[in-house]
Amino acid sequence: MSIEQISVNVTSPGRNFVTLKIVTSDGIVGWGDATLNGRELSVASYLRDHLAPMLVGRDEERIEDTWQYLYRGAYWRRGPVTMSAIAAVDMALWDIKAKRAGVPLYQLLGGASRDSLRTYYHASGTDIAALKDTVTGLVEEGFTAVRVQTGVPGLGQIYGVSSNTPGTKYNYEPAKRAADGSGAVRPSEEIWDTPAYLAHVPGVFEELRGEFGTGLRLLHDAHHRMSPIEAARLAKSLEPYGLFWLEDVTPAEDQTALRTVRQHSTTPLAIGEIFNSVHDYQTLITERLIDYVRSAVTHTGGITATRKLLDFAAIYGIRSGMHGPTDISPVGMAAAMHLGLAIHNFGIQEYMPHNDDTLDVFRTSYRFERGFLHPGDAPGLGVELDEEAAARFDYTAAYLPVNRLIDGTVHDW
Amino acid sequence: MSIEQISVNVTSPGRNFVTLKIVTSDGIVGWGDATLNGRELSVASYLRDHLAPMLVGRDEERIEDTWQYLYRGAYWRRGPVTMSAIAAVDMALWDIKAKRAGVPLYQLLGGASRDSLRTYYHASGTDIAALKDTVTGLVEEGFTAVRVQTGVPGLGQIYGVSSNTPGTKYNYEPAKRAADGSGAVRPSEEIWDTPAYLAHVPGVFEELRGEFGTGLRLLHDAHHRMSPIEAARLAKSLEPYGLFWLEDVTPAEDQTALRTVRQHSTTPLAIGEIFNSVHDYQTLITERLIDYVRSAVTHTGGITATRKLLDFAAIYGIRSGMHGPTDISPVGMAAAMHLGLAIHNFGIQEYMPHNDDTLDVFRTSYRFERGFLHPGDAPGLGVELDEEAAARFDYTAAYLPVNRLIDGTVHDW
Amino acid sequence: MSIEQISVNVTSPGRNFVTLKIVTSDGIVGWGDATLNGRELSVASYLRDHLAPMLVGRDEERIEDTWQYLYRGAYWRRGPVTMSAIAAVDMALWDIKAKRAGVPLYQLLGGASRDSLRTYYHASGTDIAALKDTVTGLVEEGFTAVRVQTGVPGLGQIYGVSSNTPGTKYNYEPAKRAADGSGAVRPSEEIWDTPAYLAHVPGVFEELRGEFGTGLRLLHDAHHRMSPIEAARLAKSLEPYGLFWLEDVTPAEDQTALRTVRQHSTTPLAIGEIFNSVHDYQTLITERLIDYVRSAVTHTGGITATRKLLDFAAIYGIRSGMHGPTDISPVGMAAAMHLGLAIHNFGIQEYMPHNDDTLDVFRTSYRFERGFLHPGDAPGLGVELDEEAAARFDYTAAYLPVNRLIDGTVHDW
Amino acid sequence: MSIEQISVNVTSPGRNFVTLKIVTSDGIVGWGDATLNGRELSVASYLRDHLAPMLVGRDEERIEDTWQYLYRGAYWRRGPVTMSAIAAVDMALWDIKAKRAGVPLYQLLGGASRDSLRTYYHASGTDIAALKDTVTGLVEEGFTAVRVQTGVPGLGQIYGVSSNTPGTKYNYEPAKRAADGSGAVRPSEEIWDTPAYLAHVPGVFEELRGEFGTGLRLLHDAHHRMSPIEAARLAKSLEPYGLFWLEDVTPAEDQTALRTVRQHSTTPLAIGEIFNSVHDYQTLITERLIDYVRSAVTHTGGITATRKLLDFAAIYGIRSGMHGPTDISPVGMAAAMHLGLAIHNFGIQEYMPHNDDTLDVFRTSYRFERGFLHPGDAPGLGVELDEEAAARFDYTAAYLPVNRLIDGTVHDW
Repeated sequence: MSIEQISVNVTSPGRNFVTLKIVTSDGIVGWGDATLNGRELSVASYLRDHLAPMLVGRDEERIEDTWQYLYRGAYWRRGPVTMSAIAAVDMALWDIKAKRAGVPLYQLLGGASRDSLRTYYHASGTDIAALKDTVTGLVEEGFTAVRVQTGVPGLGQIYGVSSNTPGTKYNYEPAKRAADGSGAVRPSEEIWDTPAYLAHVPGVFEELRGEFGTGLRLLHDAHHRMSPIEAARLAKSLEPYGLFWLEDVTPAEDQTALRTVRQHSTTPLAIGEIFNSVHDYQTLITERLIDYVRSAVTHTGGITATRKLLDFAAIYGIRSGMHGPTDISPVGMAAAMHLGLAIHNFGIQEYMPHNDDTLDVFRTSYRFERGFLHPGDAPGLGVELDEEAAARFDYTAAYLPVNRLIDGTVHDW
Repeated sequence: MSIEQISVNVTSPGRNFVTLKIVTSDGIVGWGDATLNGRELSVASYLRDHLAPMLVGRDEERIEDTWQYLYRGAYWRRGPVTMSAIAAVDMALWDIKAKRAGVPLYQLLGGASRDSLRTYYHASGTDIAALKDTVTGLVEEGFTAVRVQTGVPGLGQIYGVSSNTPGTKYNYEPAKRAADGSGAVRPSEEIWDTPAYLAHVPGVFEELRGEFGTGLRLLHDAHHRMSPIEAARLAKSLEPYGLFWLEDVTPAEDQTALRTVRQHSTTPLAIGEIFNSVHDYQTLITERLIDYVRSAVTHTGGITATRKLLDFAAIYGIRSGMHGPTDISPVGMAAAMHLGLAIHNFGIQEYMPHNDDTLDVFRTSYRFERGFLHPGDAPGLGVELDEEAAARFDYTAAYLPVNRLIDGTVHDW
Repeated sequence: MSIEQISVNVTSPGRNFVTLKIVTSDGIVGWGDATLNGRELSVASYLRDHLAPMLVGRDEERIEDTWQYLYRGAYWRRGPVTMSAIAAVDMALWDIKAKRAGVPLYQLLGGASRDSLRTYYHASGTDIAALKDTVTGLVEEGFTAVRVQTGVPGLGQIYGVSSNTPGTKYNYEPAKRAADGSGAVRPSEEIWDTPAYLAHVPGVFEELRGEFGTGLRLLHDAHHRMSPIEAARLAKSLEPYGLFWLEDVTPAEDQTALRTVRQHSTTPLAIGEIFNSVHDYQTLITERLIDYVRSAVTHTGGITATRKLLDFAAIYGIRSGMHGPTDISPVGMAAAMHLGLAIHNFGIQEYMPHNDDTLDVFRTSYRFERGFLHPGDAPGLGVELDEEAAARFDYTAAYLPVNRLIDGTVHDW
Repeated sequence: MSIEQISVNVTSPGRNFVTLKIVTSDGIVGWGDATLNGRELSVASYLRDHLAPMLVGRDEERIEDTWQYLYRGAYWRRGPVTMSAIAAVDMALWDIKAKRAGVPLYQLLGGASRDSLRTYYHASGTDIAALKDTVTGLVEEGFTAVRVQTGVPGLGQIYGVSSNTPGTKYNYEPAKRAADGSGAVRPSEEIWDTPAYLAHVPGVFEELRGEFGTGLRLLHDAHHRMSPIEAARLAKSLEPYGLFWLEDVTPAEDQTALRTVRQHSTTPLAIGEIFNSVHDYQTLITERLIDYVRSAVTHTGGITATRKLLDFAAIYGIRSGMHGPTDISPVGMAAAMHLGLAIHNFGIQEYMPHNDDTLDVFRTSYRFERGFLHPGDAPGLGVELDEEAAARFDYTAAYLPVNRLIDGTVHDW
């Protein structure tokens, strides 16, 4: 048995997804997610032009060997494009291996370590009243963990804050498509001011704890915008509200920045959604600067690499908190769920449901109920791409926003 | 499907072996090795009296959950007895999972990362001439790596040196059985002198390099007997001979002892055959004090735990060199081979063939050819215990020797 | 004179105890405790099958030599089973040595460094009112130090909380025996939620300090359940209440986890009841990450090894706080008391009285009065096993509970 | 003035090159190199599909702002594909800025700090005789620095060793194109054995020093293949031969691996040709683990980012040694030369001349004379792409080789 056919599917049922299809010589089909929000076609090219010719004819059971072949054989290692492409190959091969064994993937990863996966959902509000309404709605739906983002007085649209009517479901989507008649697509630009944010946020959590008590797990994402000492101030100022985690407080490529934050606060820290290698975590984990690993299976070299990363974290008492907004396709989400169900050091899973068009294109078998997810028991990953349905949705360029300070300086978004 | 029946087999075809048998409700049989040389019955009791009742009725697919249940549920964690018992359960469950999938275990671990496993064999000689003869024989058989132990002038029987006729096959077996008519069994006692050893060893390797050139991988085991600075002297004095590794230079429970050795020498270091937990390695790995992980799957909590340990080591460029003398049963050897075939950072596998009685009791499907091993392609681990054959060999108490200095002080053996 | 006879007694006067008996050629009897809660028979096998044959005929006065002979001669060192077995031999030999000298053991250890041993007792309550009642009762009995465990709203039975009628004596016994007619014995399972616990505990200590003032020594046991940052938050949040110690905040095998806790708080830390070797403490002590050594003589290789451990701790200003619940037999408790009376850096002794059946089986001469213990002045350890009485109580399998998170994940109990 | 037109040129005059063209609204043309050997089309897609639409209409003078806009605005930062694309934009904008000023680029970077750039050239030989011939030829041409690669007895084709007739010019090109009639293109596979290499290399340098004396700068590239301790042994064993540098001794993504090497040797270390961010160097530079920065301007985000990186290195006494084989296009080489001429801490420049077809496509104005390079004094970078000439050479897929150990394990190439 060997890999006979490889193809790359790009579809856009509301947003763009890149999906790899591998077919074995005996007809088993495996799927892998290679979606890199805003840079999709570069990954598609990496797969189609560079990896596919290398893979045809290879033994599809040799997953570790293939991973090393693609990683070390690339010579130019790491980075989001490379590691998303490798991730897609890896996922597809694990999908095939589990289908051949006739079991859901989590069984090959050691079996279920829990009944289901606690998720957190996003809540936001341009003001406190709107935010409380949204959180109330989520608690009523059964969520036990909510990520809270808040508007900041004096600033306009900022990361993570939906402009929805209060009380309606949060469906914040930062990646913007062509907005004018010219057809030109550009990133939107937002304005940021750290002092305004630092002054505003603690009061928001004070209000929330007052309203919802200590039982609700509250999370917050600072989205890379603070300097180390600003981040330390933020983490310390939020201590009284017992956050489940504070995410991405500093630009992530500077691992030792978190030493400063850690020195000053016991607020749990999460980071890693823009990481793609275990080496991005080596200092963070061994110096115990973080508490949750935020990597996506889709961007971190697939199941093979993400499992090793999470096993490494476990030795240090660090848990998973895998990235899971809608720019991870249902294939990538399923991979995260199977892995999350199997590992011991699962922490929490980010979850935002895909829209109906997406769920027409990707036929899923995972289940969501009152705040908890389960990957389902179909063989393999349990997600199949409907290529005909996918063909109805052409790629449409979109960009994540760019952030600037009030004086015009480009800032981390 | 669930675990229906558990039993512990103790047999002694020339030496003692403890083997766990797990039978599922649909009749699949899994085998696990729990042999702890010289302390066998304590592990058998741990399994029979304490673990077996906990396991009947459990879902045999939940391997990670079961591992954590036994490890964390024990309350009293780690240690050779506990971790050998857990290892046997873990191996048996992986054996079952792979048999259910109909594939050799290495396929579930990610598939083969290499064609076969380079092994090293033991050579020894009471003097240089005998040693050269033995090494010559091994090279002619195809071995590319040889562990060399040497007699030391003025000392009698010491660790690792066979008193065989020069030129005959090395079959050194340190665990001694009852030797006198009284039926009393005691450890034999050997005499040790570190200065004599340190003065003698470098010359031996000079002779060997002169005879065999630089192409042969030479290994040496110092068997825990040196103080840190003695170990540093030894490692430094052996540098000119380019050893593949120097093993167990200091008593292993004192991890930071190797800082002193490392500071003075580039001789590669291997350690870990008496370890049983990843925590025994945390400093060694993150401070890069070793180059090869010597743990046995049988003594380190099984495949689940040993895989995580080796993946951790890989992040630091450290490779496997798994323990594999005849006190690891064929079941445990097969587990090591499947794992070694699958991981990327395989280094080398210790190998000593079992005697014919042992191979009557354990029906193996692994293959050995000119210095290289392969686990074979039978489903599961590929080793089956013949319970009838096993019943012919009653347990016979045996002990590893005790070491003393010339003045009578107990020393590390 | 030499060791003539060795036997292992397993009895269960309400709970299981393993006791080693050594008889010398001139008829002196020494007793040692080898009880390892829930894994008793494995230790009994280790002693009976593996150590006893090695010891018959040896000079019973050579305690240090025997310790090294058993520790280094085992080859497979450390771990709870091994070290409990060695502990029993060591205790019995010290008992013999002191009996031969006709003095209570503490005289051979350097004589009394204090009049008696301050103890702490356990108090718990499912709610604040019950807890206050229990503490009030203990204060009235003369206790000056109380370990406080509390129920957590929303959780059921958790570690350390007795469901006794408020005001009655705490006699929490976590090891569960067969509970149904089937004869099957399994660990009970408890449910745990760290966020609920972290939110609840500080308020409990605020109430207690309000009620009992600052004079009462308050201790608390977190029982291995926190991640490093959660532990740091807990320690920091308890600072205002001036705890005597906070115990086992993180899973103990990961020594450097306490760096994170230490960085954030001056709450004194105690750890070690599941340790069995000085090497488990090497980082903790030299980096001054703890303040109290919690080891039991019974699980740490006996008096010989525990004395060295505590002497090492003294160099760093760290004191003893030896483990002492009812799963340490009266023999093991006596050993702790003699050692505690003799060393300079005694801190406090955990104490829970055994039930009447136990005290019929073990004839003790130690004395307890208004919160203080004294080992008594009978020769040796001062505890004798009544073998006839012991024979009335057959071994009955029991297990410590297993802990799971709400989602079903195995957690540290 | 603003960016009016952006296009991506892919051409293959003997090997593949990706070149970005930016045209301003007033007709100035800037060129940037985006060649990533073996992954060219993925970078071309990144530029064409994702960056070009963002750039049209922007003020071309705002180079720093544009760099941050592309780097931070990507959200998914770093990695070879991303940073090569950004590099091309950055180079093109600097080319334009210098052309607008009518000066060679180095003038805008602070002016010339030296007369010309010392280069090193590659020499190799399958045996010592061939190697000596090649080196002799280079010395006669005026080279003062030579990188020496050597065949290893028992191994076939390995990195860096040309199979040219002894004495002819070295033109080793590792990237292989389609080799069979089937049209299938796959990486070639080489076989590697570290022990054989380690045993062989020191003798080669001993011979060379004997032949050429101490005056010639000798460099060597270990090409990522050693484990940390093997690398330490290599560096130590080469100390007597006073290398100018030893390059890429360990897999580069594991920065702290070089601590082990540094501890044992004073052989100068160079690393970084596969790096693309200053964060890949943060530990290496601040812990002074390296002596030369090997980054290519083309792969490290362009002139803006590479200048900052080299300025950071200068603070620690570390010099430049920029990557410069033929897979850096003449545009990328010119960028390296202008930067190298301007900075203070220039060390050496790698140099391999492009073939004639390449020099027809790229019209260069840089000068090479007796081992020294100068970027020339044409305005801007001084290299112009002849688009008509380029159109004659279609993209031809090619791959760098994959390396395997003798047992079949994928190894670092």
